[in-house]
Amino acid sequence: MPSRDDRLWNDLMALGGLTDPGRPYTRRCFTDRFLEGRRWLSQRFEDAGLRVRLDEGGNLIGRLEGGDPFLPVLAMGSHSDTVASGGRFDGPLGVLAGLEVVRRLRDRGIALRHPVEIIDFLSEEPSDYGPSCIGSRAMTGFLDEPMLSLANADGETLASAMRRMGADPSRLAGPRRNDVAAFLELHIEQARVLETRGCNIGIVTGIVGIARVEIEFTGAADHAGTTPFHVRQDALVAAAATISAVRRLGEAFAARSQDYFIATTGCIAIQPNAANVVPGTARLVIEARAERSAHLSDFLDEISLASLEAASAANVQRTAFRPLSRSEPAPSDPRLREHLMAAADALALTAIPMASGAGHDAGFMARIAPMAMVFVPSRDGRSHCPEEWTDAAACSEGASVLFEALLRIDGDDRFATRDGASSPARSD
Amino acid sequence: MPSRDDRLWNDLMALGGLTDPGRPYTRRCFTDRFLEGRRWLSQRFEDAGLRVRLDEGGNLIGRLEGGDPFLPVLAMGSHSDTVASGGRFDGPLGVLAGLEVVRRLRDRGIALRHPVEIIDFLSEEPSDYGPSCIGSRAMTGFLDEPMLSLANADGETLASAMRRMGADPSRLAGPRRNDVAAFLELHIEQARVLETRGCNIGIVTGIVGIARVEIEFTGAADHAGTTPFHVRQDALVAAAATISAVRRLGEAFAARSQDYFIATTGCIAIQPNAANVVPGTARLVIEARAERSAHLSDFLDEISLASLEAASAANVQRTAFRPLSRSEPAPSDPRLREHLMAAADALALTAIPMASGAGHDAGFMARIAPMAMVFVPSRDGRSHCPEEWTDAAACSEGASVLFEALLRIDGDDRFATRDGASSPARSD
Repeated sequence: MPSRDDRLWNDLMALGGLTDPGRPYTRRCFTDRFLEGRRWLSQRFEDAGLRVRLDEGGNLIGRLEGGDPFLPVLAMGSHSDTVASGGRFDGPLGVLAGLEVVRRLRDRGIALRHPVEIIDFLSEEPSDYGPSCIGSRAMTGFLDEPMLSLANADGETLASAMRRMGADPSRLAGPRRNDVAAFLELHIEQARVLETRGCNIGIVTGIVGIARVEIEFTGAADHAGTTPFHVRQDALVAAAATISAVRRLGEAFAARSQDYFIATTGCIAIQPNAANVVPGTARLVIEARAERSAHLSDFLDEISLASLEAASAANVQRTAFRPLSRSEPAPSDPRLREHLMAAADALALTAIPMASGAGHDAGFMARIAPMAMVFVPSRDGRSHCPEEWTDAAACSEGASVLFEALLRIDGDDRFATRDGASSPARSD
Repeated sequence: MPSRDDRLWNDLMALGGLTDPGRPYTRRCFTDRFLEGRRWLSQRFEDAGLRVRLDEGGNLIGRLEGGDPFLPVLAMGSHSDTVASGGRFDGPLGVLAGLEVVRRLRDRGIALRHPVEIIDFLSEEPSDYGPSCIGSRAMTGFLDEPMLSLANADGETLASAMRRMGADPSRLAGPRRNDVAAFLELHIEQARVLETRGCNIGIVTGIVGIARVEIEFTGAADHAGTTPFHVRQDALVAAAATISAVRRLGEAFAARSQDYFIATTGCIAIQPNAANVVPGTARLVIEARAERSAHLSDFLDEISLASLEAASAANVQRTAFRPLSRSEPAPSDPRLREHLMAAADALALTAIPMASGAGHDAGFMARIAPMAMVFVPSRDGRSHCPEEWTDAAACSEGASVLFEALLRIDGDDRFATRDGASSPARSD
């Protein structure tokens, strides 16, 4: 029988090994490879004594009953799907660590009061159908008909693809779950903060909200040789000033806020994009991420102003300032964070509070239950690439924090009522 | 018999009417449509009493012998090919105005001392094979083997395509023409200077040299949510600062120079170009155009410095500053400019000196002969589009300036020797 540490690590490597050949580590949702991974995972759940089911949203759930049939669920999980040519940790760690926690309970003969569920959420990564976090959206009432009707390039709808994965989208209109007392997600950090500061554990204060806008400038695609500066309407010049403003104002927001704030211009497209033609149109996609909703709004207001000024200076029109998407920040539950911090202390692990700049299934779970997340270090901050790496010891430490915290939460009467479960802490 | 004015205008409309149906006005070189236009043009040349030939570079030439068989050629011309969905004036005007000049000579019973050639240069517009100005390059010794070996998307080489047009690229290695005493090209301005200033005629002081460079920045394509500003390596931020510098420094060069100067960032491409990823690489194509070669070099030096500073500020590497192409400025011959100015004066037309910010066949002809160009106004400066327009009166005035100048040049003994022809004024 392998040691506890080896067991989790071996699971991670075994699931990672189920990859499209030739492009490790690829197990994209809605593929046969993904189903192969789920069959493996389902067997592991059963081996650990969990009762396995697929819910209507296509989430694979392994359940361990508790001592008190009237207590709500303590849930842990993440996702087993990957991006193309991704890594072995983003997602699987949170699912397999939950499984490992259950095994440790059994190893030690510990019976909890609460039932425990380990959840493998469907398609956390962006899919060919558009949205990400499909399973956690489904569980929390955020997967609506327009989303279900989105189609991939072959014309297959998301609803149809979900059915292929064993989901039943027709049942999603029903009431969302109200039986979850707490949700915990262990995840790799995907950044360099823990590594740089030499810390073992990040206790997530909140998952950022994300606002994306598209900005479009329209000038005139004149001849680059014959059009003097004073009559030019160069859309790229306006775009460049706006890109610089996003960085400058973003840094100012980050510097004056206690909370996490970041902003990026990630996309640009110009027309006609020819060496000898003044750019006639330019399109940017800008995103801001913040722990506080008001910061998103304030930043977008400032960028709107800056882009209007940039348009005016370049003698072009700002023909669009179009919101593309907006998700609200999801703060972690302070009581759960206390239990996680106490768990880390008990294990003599160094732990620091930090924001999650990336979205996670836990962000949707926060809509129906108290939520908290644990981060472990990512080597060089790399993620979504084959080089993604977290040491076996760090993976095990993350699982240990979940284990110790779960015992504490199980004993905390504040999580013993369904009232508590259905009224999570919010601060939108 | 139509009036002289109608004759040129009717020719312009007739040749313009030979267009790919559904996308006026399209007569791209190397197509059957282009050959259809050339058959029409060849017939018009013959109708005007010109002897028609195709030279080894695929240029269609109509020749009128002069009174003195030992005098070198006075040449006029431009090109009959168009861009896709282009106009009816860019190119055809210079060829058909030359033809009209010959007709007016005949109408008035004027016999010149010099032979006159009207040249329709092959493929002045950019082709699917890469280079532009193929015919004038060929005639002046600037179409070399590497260029002839360039292929289009179907794998056909330029040499092969030229053969389809009746050229004989195998003979291009011979000595370049040394029998041209002067070359004149009438062209639409393709900008708004004449229109804005209410002038009839632009006498071109010189054709700008064009230098193009590719600049590449390499940073790191990190997660846009989890990578704090102070560790970002955002290639787009460096590119944006460089785009702003091209405009700012370009305006400064233009302001402090007597000569024409313009600079543009026309192309940008970033990777991965995703909303949630910090741009890891950015590539710009920048061009400068100047009447003085030294200004091109000085500007590129300043942009090189500015791009290095931009890279440093954004914590990225400037991984390339790569010259893509460089053509030297081609000054007009001052004696020809004097004749053109005198011709405009004699016709009571307002004429101003101005640079050509666009390249033309005349730029290559300047390598083998004294050259000058005449511009007539373009409505709204529009060109390379179906709306391209120059009034019939302005077209006729341009032809009249050519006609009056040609008489003066024919009588100017400075153009009566082949020595003069083979030693054009240069100021590189």
